[in-house]
Amino acid sequence: MTKRIRLGMVGGGKDAFIGAVHRIAARIDGEFDLVAGALSSTPEKARDSGAALGLEPDRCYDSFEAMAETEAARPDGIEAVSIVTPNHVHGPAAKAFLSRGIHVICDKPLTATIAQAEDLAEAIRQAKSLFILTHNYTGYPMIRQAREMIAAGDLGALRVVQVEYPQDWLTEAAEQSGENKQAEWRTDPERSGAGGSVGDIGSHAHNLACFVAGDRVEKLAADLQAFVPGRRVDDNAHVLLRFAGGARGMLWCSQVAPGNENALRLRVYGEKGGLEWSQEDPNYLWFTPFGEPKRLLTRGGSGARAAASAVTRTPGGHPEGYLEGFANIYAGAAQAIRAARDGRRDPVLDVLPGLEAGLEGMRFIDACVRSSQQDAAWVAL
Amino acid sequence: MTKRIRLGMVGGGKDAFIGAVHRIAARIDGEFDLVAGALSSTPEKARDSGAALGLEPDRCYDSFEAMAETEAARPDGIEAVSIVTPNHVHGPAAKAFLSRGIHVICDKPLTATIAQAEDLAEAIRQAKSLFILTHNYTGYPMIRQAREMIAAGDLGALRVVQVEYPQDWLTEAAEQSGENKQAEWRTDPERSGAGGSVGDIGSHAHNLACFVAGDRVEKLAADLQAFVPGRRVDDNAHVLLRFAGGARGMLWCSQVAPGNENALRLRVYGEKGGLEWSQEDPNYLWFTPFGEPKRLLTRGGSGARAAASAVTRTPGGHPEGYLEGFANIYAGAAQAIRAARDGRRDPVLDVLPGLEAGLEGMRFIDACVRSSQQDAAWVAL
Amino acid sequence: MTKRIRLGMVGGGKDAFIGAVHRIAARIDGEFDLVAGALSSTPEKARDSGAALGLEPDRCYDSFEAMAETEAARPDGIEAVSIVTPNHVHGPAAKAFLSRGIHVICDKPLTATIAQAEDLAEAIRQAKSLFILTHNYTGYPMIRQAREMIAAGDLGALRVVQVEYPQDWLTEAAEQSGENKQAEWRTDPERSGAGGSVGDIGSHAHNLACFVAGDRVEKLAADLQAFVPGRRVDDNAHVLLRFAGGARGMLWCSQVAPGNENALRLRVYGEKGGLEWSQEDPNYLWFTPFGEPKRLLTRGGSGARAAASAVTRTPGGHPEGYLEGFANIYAGAAQAIRAARDGRRDPVLDVLPGLEAGLEGMRFIDACVRSSQQDAAWVAL
Amino acid sequence: MTKRIRLGMVGGGKDAFIGAVHRIAARIDGEFDLVAGALSSTPEKARDSGAALGLEPDRCYDSFEAMAETEAARPDGIEAVSIVTPNHVHGPAAKAFLSRGIHVICDKPLTATIAQAEDLAEAIRQAKSLFILTHNYTGYPMIRQAREMIAAGDLGALRVVQVEYPQDWLTEAAEQSGENKQAEWRTDPERSGAGGSVGDIGSHAHNLACFVAGDRVEKLAADLQAFVPGRRVDDNAHVLLRFAGGARGMLWCSQVAPGNENALRLRVYGEKGGLEWSQEDPNYLWFTPFGEPKRLLTRGGSGARAAASAVTRTPGGHPEGYLEGFANIYAGAAQAIRAARDGRRDPVLDVLPGLEAGLEGMRFIDACVRSSQQDAAWVAL
Repeated sequence: MTKRIRLGMVGGGKDAFIGAVHRIAARIDGEFDLVAGALSSTPEKARDSGAALGLEPDRCYDSFEAMAETEAARPDGIEAVSIVTPNHVHGPAAKAFLSRGIHVICDKPLTATIAQAEDLAEAIRQAKSLFILTHNYTGYPMIRQAREMIAAGDLGALRVVQVEYPQDWLTEAAEQSGENKQAEWRTDPERSGAGGSVGDIGSHAHNLACFVAGDRVEKLAADLQAFVPGRRVDDNAHVLLRFAGGARGMLWCSQVAPGNENALRLRVYGEKGGLEWSQEDPNYLWFTPFGEPKRLLTRGGSGARAAASAVTRTPGGHPEGYLEGFANIYAGAAQAIRAARDGRRDPVLDVLPGLEAGLEGMRFIDACVRSSQQDAAWVAL
Repeated sequence: MTKRIRLGMVGGGKDAFIGAVHRIAARIDGEFDLVAGALSSTPEKARDSGAALGLEPDRCYDSFEAMAETEAARPDGIEAVSIVTPNHVHGPAAKAFLSRGIHVICDKPLTATIAQAEDLAEAIRQAKSLFILTHNYTGYPMIRQAREMIAAGDLGALRVVQVEYPQDWLTEAAEQSGENKQAEWRTDPERSGAGGSVGDIGSHAHNLACFVAGDRVEKLAADLQAFVPGRRVDDNAHVLLRFAGGARGMLWCSQVAPGNENALRLRVYGEKGGLEWSQEDPNYLWFTPFGEPKRLLTRGGSGARAAASAVTRTPGGHPEGYLEGFANIYAGAAQAIRAARDGRRDPVLDVLPGLEAGLEGMRFIDACVRSSQQDAAWVAL
Repeated sequence: MTKRIRLGMVGGGKDAFIGAVHRIAARIDGEFDLVAGALSSTPEKARDSGAALGLEPDRCYDSFEAMAETEAARPDGIEAVSIVTPNHVHGPAAKAFLSRGIHVICDKPLTATIAQAEDLAEAIRQAKSLFILTHNYTGYPMIRQAREMIAAGDLGALRVVQVEYPQDWLTEAAEQSGENKQAEWRTDPERSGAGGSVGDIGSHAHNLACFVAGDRVEKLAADLQAFVPGRRVDDNAHVLLRFAGGARGMLWCSQVAPGNENALRLRVYGEKGGLEWSQEDPNYLWFTPFGEPKRLLTRGGSGARAAASAVTRTPGGHPEGYLEGFANIYAGAAQAIRAARDGRRDPVLDVLPGLEAGLEGMRFIDACVRSSQQDAAWVAL
Repeated sequence: MTKRIRLGMVGGGKDAFIGAVHRIAARIDGEFDLVAGALSSTPEKARDSGAALGLEPDRCYDSFEAMAETEAARPDGIEAVSIVTPNHVHGPAAKAFLSRGIHVICDKPLTATIAQAEDLAEAIRQAKSLFILTHNYTGYPMIRQAREMIAAGDLGALRVVQVEYPQDWLTEAAEQSGENKQAEWRTDPERSGAGGSVGDIGSHAHNLACFVAGDRVEKLAADLQAFVPGRRVDDNAHVLLRFAGGARGMLWCSQVAPGNENALRLRVYGEKGGLEWSQEDPNYLWFTPFGEPKRLLTRGGSGARAAASAVTRTPGGHPEGYLEGFANIYAGAAQAIRAARDGRRDPVLDVLPGLEAGLEGMRFIDACVRSSQQDAAWVAL
């Protein structure tokens, strides 16, 4: 193992949720050293958060612009940066680093608006550094396995895709309490985008379905609701899907379904068999070859295939979870960055979500909002 | 207990599936005696099937018309009849008995076509005898409980209804083998109606959702598919639902989803909580009051309410199944028929599915087909 | 189908639990007609209970002796009798009918004491009529399948048997309230026998393990407890098992395990694979061939074998339950009784529990009590 | 956050399993820096393994003795060491570091023999540095919660403890293939100790039960088997337990139960309620207050208590797994070590397993072996 990759972070100060997740994901395999941060747009909070993480004071920045400029000039400056801010900041922040040759690992969705997305896309295409989007659920070993099985034809031609992501944390008007920062920005169209549940979690469901199916959604018809009075964005969505390859599907996402925490679930059926997976029990993958008994494939177990084994750290029956799945994105990013040091393109980039996944996600969110405005008319992505 | 109710049956000869189910359901509580049958339209098969069931030879009829006429004239003639034929026969058969004052217990859907349904509806409205439709899933104790909880406001105003009924038995072209009678008539629009999966199982899902929600579907948008080449009716359907009371929902039914046997599943979410139920594990009802841990209510257990207890035969942990749920429709029918003997209307009729449920079901099937023909446009029921 | 079998019943009057279960089980397949009863030792209750069941007044008896004598003399007298009394009555009642050529279907355990059991055994051996013991859990289709798979060598030589039957209904001193008749007699050594939980449910667990393994327990070491102050019999038992064929096992039964209703569960492991089954979800059987993924076999599904199919009434995914499993014992009894009418011995008797299972059960209970009295020393059965 | 804790490691070179787990656990919270290692007793392997982990060449040692002596003399020497060798090395290695004031984090069981354990215990008692034993399952948040609930009296006085740990990886004679290092040393009494399954996994089950119950096993009766021909230690064990506080229990561990990966499962029942937990689905804890419906408590969910929240990193529904549970031991160790830097004893040491848990574990293994030699006689721990 050569030197660890020097990493910076934008966002993720105290009280943030996803920043801490990124940091653990970056640490699990020992591939990164977090050495710099613009952890908050409030200078004092940025400093305190950095100190709490053991950063040197002179590498705790007040803005991502300052961090990009200064770090790019240091001989020991960061090689990669994690962007974990609200969505509307993704674009400008990413551009600041990409333009200076620093690799970007960015939280999803790509941006808050389609216009921002296209602007960022242009920057990514022109950059020499890598852009990885943390659609973290694609990092689960049994999701990698499902994708591999479908690509290998184990299900035959796909017919039906059912995907859902219900939660319940916005069942009441949590964003109006003044105490829930997460609820506030995630229901604010300025910071989050026009999609509420479709942007925050529907985009994950859409991405996961496409990733596993090896296909893209071509058209959709969406019925969005904002059930909680005063809510500015949708908190529940029902979507009909038509895939380019001929499969049809449904997508449900909700933040108002009591009893659901993060119940992302994917089911795919083809001419020859079916696969079923649930994020809350991610070490299992149900596989039914048509006409045979259902089989419970386990991560690390006898039915595990190469794609799962490649991202497996513990034996079967010793469960891995959300952080390990997330860490598989970081592990892949590390592998790609090390190859980039040597001027190579690592094939792991074929599996890692990046710009294309990001753009598809933005098109999905936009299409949902437009379709719903037309009373669930079909809209092309 | 006074005398058992004398019962006849139309359809349900050898090789039929649902006829045997009706007979067991009628026997479980000892309320009926099967004494006559027009079990097949083939005379020899009618006789043999009757003999196998211990019927007297002179009460094994070649046609339902002959049975209706003859039995109505006997002093010990049948008081009720079960109709378990393919759908297109439901209407004429039911009319023959209703017009003679014989109570009818009819398999679902109501008929094969809307026109037949309206014709039958007229006959039912004018009849003095009862008409019960065996939407048998409404007989499950925990479904009765779910309905009661929602009516009592345990979930608050309903927001989201998710219902699905996937199967896999038509994943291949079973109807073309010449050996699968069930597959043949159920995919034949003449005998089954214009709906395939939506008629056979989608109608169950629709009925169950409405029964539990205590509401009706006002509009829907349906995307139907016939995935198997040569299939004459849909074998998969994705439907968006809008309920009169404001709830929104999704309905998925499929006969091509490998790994699903009869995976009817209902989930209902309201302002205050959520309920989840699965037909394959029917003794459980998951209840989450928002903000509290999920609770596993069991039939016969400490969380069981009056509506469940009233139709419960065994203690908690001794599972009841499909036949007991079906028998609860027959038990209700018996109760209503005994009351009718005395000229009373038994309140169990408020729970039992009958004409209204049947008409709603036909409207559902028809709306699905029409919507799909218009590329999933919204259609009113 | 020839004439139904004329059935009588001893015990099972109002407020009884298991009598109603036997009656439903006898009705499900339409093989029996209940025509006589000595339903209670209280004459008035016997009459009222009989009337409620539609029995003729002259066939409602005050005692089993009177019923045996009178029915045996009638040309249309009962051919078989179900005995559903407390355990200490099993012996005398069974003898009264066996000695008159009437077949006996008796609830388990065989008797209340070993001495009673030996006495009854002698009577059974000398009788010309059949004796069936309703160890009803052996009637579940997937239990029949498990037995068949093991007999076929699918697991190889057996090594480990884990069986348990926890309940929670006696967590508190229910027998002291004066309102719980079931709790009263089942904790009364005079009526129930020296075993409490080991007699009531441990005997089921023992029977099930032996039935499926195709083996017998040779020695055991038992640690019995009566946790509830004042309880006269054990309410929890931990037992080490050694099978004749070399397998070792553990048995746990409890009536004081909150959260358990009737959680009978069996797991069997051999050199080549493992099987797991739970009574509360009886339509599933988990099968793991060593080194392959776990498979979920379902009753009526693609993995079902002949032994399961033979006792299956509904398709896969339409769950059968406790009553159908119980009914399979009655269906087997009917088959055996019909053969006996013709002087034949039906091979179903090789599967149905009878005297041998009953004696093994009594030896099990007795060995548990004796072992525990010796501080869990090994005791031979 | 002040400086990371400088960590060394003994054992855990290439091909080892548990060493990699310890390293990830040490990294997850960013509290440790691995800076030195005696990773293998083969010098070349030690060097290569160290290089692969990014250790400086002069801190890759050929023996733990060399590492202890050299590191203790360095100003930047290690403050703590992880010992992840086969069991017989635990004692001498731990003593080498403890005697030099270096904190020890040691894999379980404490040692290979009781004599070694007593020798080590003496050293630990005289040392000024800390000794933590990685009974990692005690690190799971819902296990911490279960312990807290029981201590708070939520179950009332405990009555029954059921614990089991079945695996299947030694179903065949894997240790005889020459290719499975894990199987080799874990079935070698010289390196592993007299207990096979009881030492490797039974000791985990015993520890977990005691940890949660807040009690100790006073006596046991054990029936051990070595089912696989030629195996030198037990591969399956059935154990009756008597706790000091009056509860009774059973423990089953097995390495020959096909279909079980790491199915550690704990169930505890008291006068007022029951708790059930499974290691393979560790984010759930089932809680049944007697007489109420079962509740599904989730890590991070509404039923989570302080003890669980304190060791929780992700929200409910985003599962944590084995590595996070393991990391909670390391996080506790870090907290205790930081306090020790300041001369304080951190109260986390009341929760972390250490010498006492280690001695109890050794007594458990020894008692199992002795009891089994006496045909499962009761033996005091």
